[in-house]
Amino acid sequence: MATTDTISLRVFSLNCWGIRYLSKHCLQRYAMIGELLCKDQHDVVLLQEVWSEKDYLSLKRKLGGSYPHSHYFKSGVIGSGLAIFSRHRIDDAFLYRYSLNGYPYMAHHGDWFGGKAVGMAILNIGRLRAHVYVTHLHAEYCRDKDTYLPHRVVQAWELQQFIRHTSGGADLVILGGDLNMHPQDLGNRLLRTFTGLRDSYLEVTKFDGCEDGMTLIADNPFINKKEIVPFEKGIRIDYILLKGSSKVDIRCESMCTTKGSVPDHPFPYSDHEALSAELQLTQNQAGDDQQTKEQDCTPGKLAELVDIVTEARTEVKVGLHCAERMRYTAARTGVMGLALLLLELTIAAVPWFALGAEQPFPRATFYLLAALCFAILLTTALLYIFYTMEVKSLQGAEDQMRLAVGSLQERLRGVPLAQPVNVERRTPPERQGPFGPEE
Amino acid sequence: MATTDTISLRVFSLNCWGIRYLSKHCLQRYAMIGELLCKDQHDVVLLQEVWSEKDYLSLKRKLGGSYPHSHYFKSGVIGSGLAIFSRHRIDDAFLYRYSLNGYPYMAHHGDWFGGKAVGMAILNIGRLRAHVYVTHLHAEYCRDKDTYLPHRVVQAWELQQFIRHTSGGADLVILGGDLNMHPQDLGNRLLRTFTGLRDSYLEVTKFDGCEDGMTLIADNPFINKKEIVPFEKGIRIDYILLKGSSKVDIRCESMCTTKGSVPDHPFPYSDHEALSAELQLTQNQAGDDQQTKEQDCTPGKLAELVDIVTEARTEVKVGLHCAERMRYTAARTGVMGLALLLLELTIAAVPWFALGAEQPFPRATFYLLAALCFAILLTTALLYIFYTMEVKSLQGAEDQMRLAVGSLQERLRGVPLAQPVNVERRTPPERQGPFGPEE
Repeated sequence: MATTDTISLRVFSLNCWGIRYLSKHCLQRYAMIGELLCKDQHDVVLLQEVWSEKDYLSLKRKLGGSYPHSHYFKSGVIGSGLAIFSRHRIDDAFLYRYSLNGYPYMAHHGDWFGGKAVGMAILNIGRLRAHVYVTHLHAEYCRDKDTYLPHRVVQAWELQQFIRHTSGGADLVILGGDLNMHPQDLGNRLLRTFTGLRDSYLEVTKFDGCEDGMTLIADNPFINKKEIVPFEKGIRIDYILLKGSSKVDIRCESMCTTKGSVPDHPFPYSDHEALSAELQLTQNQAGDDQQTKEQDCTPGKLAELVDIVTEARTEVKVGLHCAERMRYTAARTGVMGLALLLLELTIAAVPWFALGAEQPFPRATFYLLAALCFAILLTTALLYIFYTMEVKSLQGAEDQMRLAVGSLQERLRGVPLAQPVNVERRTPPERQGPFGPEE
Repeated sequence: MATTDTISLRVFSLNCWGIRYLSKHCLQRYAMIGELLCKDQHDVVLLQEVWSEKDYLSLKRKLGGSYPHSHYFKSGVIGSGLAIFSRHRIDDAFLYRYSLNGYPYMAHHGDWFGGKAVGMAILNIGRLRAHVYVTHLHAEYCRDKDTYLPHRVVQAWELQQFIRHTSGGADLVILGGDLNMHPQDLGNRLLRTFTGLRDSYLEVTKFDGCEDGMTLIADNPFINKKEIVPFEKGIRIDYILLKGSSKVDIRCESMCTTKGSVPDHPFPYSDHEALSAELQLTQNQAGDDQQTKEQDCTPGKLAELVDIVTEARTEVKVGLHCAERMRYTAARTGVMGLALLLLELTIAAVPWFALGAEQPFPRATFYLLAALCFAILLTTALLYIFYTMEVKSLQGAEDQMRLAVGSLQERLRGVPLAQPVNVERRTPPERQGPFGPEE
């Protein structure tokens, strides 16, 4: 495989919807997924929502012959749900847990307990070093009123930071997973523009799959159609993104998705459709590196980045405002609980001071009220701590974004940085306004 | 500065002990630190335990003239306490929060609330790209019976992973901070051996500071001597570590520490001593890259790495055993609380079924007991969730370590990987035994 200058690489990605006892036909579907993977013989398989380690281990036993190398990423209470199977040796693995990931008290949404993260595996493909990432971002439960948007934007920000900073020595970069974002959503643009990752679906000429590459389709019987409103036919939220390097050119030759129903089986593999892409790696001519870097640094590209990061900052600020308000509400409720407790104790203490006065409280009411006050105090204290951590994470992301905008603007102004670029001074004035060049 | 082939770089690191209202003379000490930094004119200043953002902002105002660029890393409830000030432009910043960091109920130790992390800043020094890291690991409260050791080992593991994976494109790497580990502690060896970072203190010839480079000394009036038992004079737990690249050779020319008391001031800067190092960067001859990589891959070095990771795995397994036991205890106590509640409700319900029977419970006792049961249930549920997350993190780190040992052993066996190296088969048999080559 490594002897020719062109290498073919088959990549598979699927959100398995593997919540034991809750997802429908979970075990049967895992058996179907195992069969499919054995039959199709991919090079790299990226799975999400493999929530139970037992299911991972049973897949591993089944796939051992075809995919001798694998890694399961652990995070959170029941997560991260991310697994990778590979025909090529996994040399190293690393996990980055997103700093924000929903709320523990939204247990019915469950994202917080999943400990969403991005897993990185370093694969040796022939003589090439591939950095393969698998991730699953926070779900979007209501597109019109998406309370989790700031969290997802911060996740997308951290994802692009992680990929950008950890792919320094990579010959090729592949990201697969359920991003829970539509192709033109803010987080998606942020991710693609900053990292230079390309959407394989948008490039491919030979495509066989659902209309518009959708991966959550109305025809899938596991889908509640309310989930995809207002999109009647479905949405595209699962991706295989890719990037080459100065050494390797990477191109998506063909791509396909499953289409809901599976021949000879009563139900689909999952509530998501699986993606598989056939990639072509071609050894590059030397000297292309500088050219790629210069392409990344065109004033147009830099200005686009400034716009996107500014949009993301606005979204994070909205989230920050909400988190601060929630923290304030928790603090106020806690103070009220404390005041109620003190009031109750004062009233109850009256007979102690005025001997002979009657106990004003029926005893049962006294204890119930006291228990209520303690419950309020404990809950608000925990919430206050949680919201403070949320505020810190949002502020942290916003600080990083401000720094990034500052650096981008400096580059637009033509100040030579590590990679000096001769660009004209063309930042529109409205972009220069609100941000200093440095935090 | 960038016109000659040799660049001098002054780096400063200090754990500021900046807990507002709790640390002694906090504001006065910050004023002293500000004066020192203004006077000394370093290139890069790495601070830890700047717990209050107000203190960071006041330092930033004071140091704006000498250090125009700065970044404050936010994390956890009150953290991360990490700050960086720089004469050189900060191009980008990124934070990695350690997955383990003590226990929230150990509030008097406070580490959990600090959200310990490693901050990375990318600096442009002339035409060089410096990746500067600042970190602060979990404190060691009792060396003989260090219950936090597995957490600190996992932090050291994550720190080396983060540095290794994010320093791909760096011309030079600098890490400064309070590692809370002695020079030969497991985590320290893990960090240095895996990343190739060198301890500036061990290399320097011109040193002016405390004996043996100690940074927590008995002579410091803020130190409780019990903290450093059994080391009478003090310990060395703060470091400046460094590494060059194929492009740049980095060397520590001279180094100094503060020595407890400060002339003309009634008390020291902090409970830790400050470190400052003068580094010399020399442009390398081309072609050294391959040589460096080959040095990193000698069989001796690989075998040493296998030994250290194996030792770390053992420590993580000990932690895993404890965490699983604690989780089991939480579950068992929760079940007992539930049983008690059910028993109470059953006894209380007797009069409902056997009409005319007397209520067996005094009402007050009933409510108190019920409240106690609920408190037990809530606490054990929270603890169960927390310990499950701890178990997942420890398992995750152990999985990564197993993968690393497998890869290292493969390289020792001479199987060509991404960077093929001709090494003899020399792994001692006892090292090959327990670990498969791949997870």
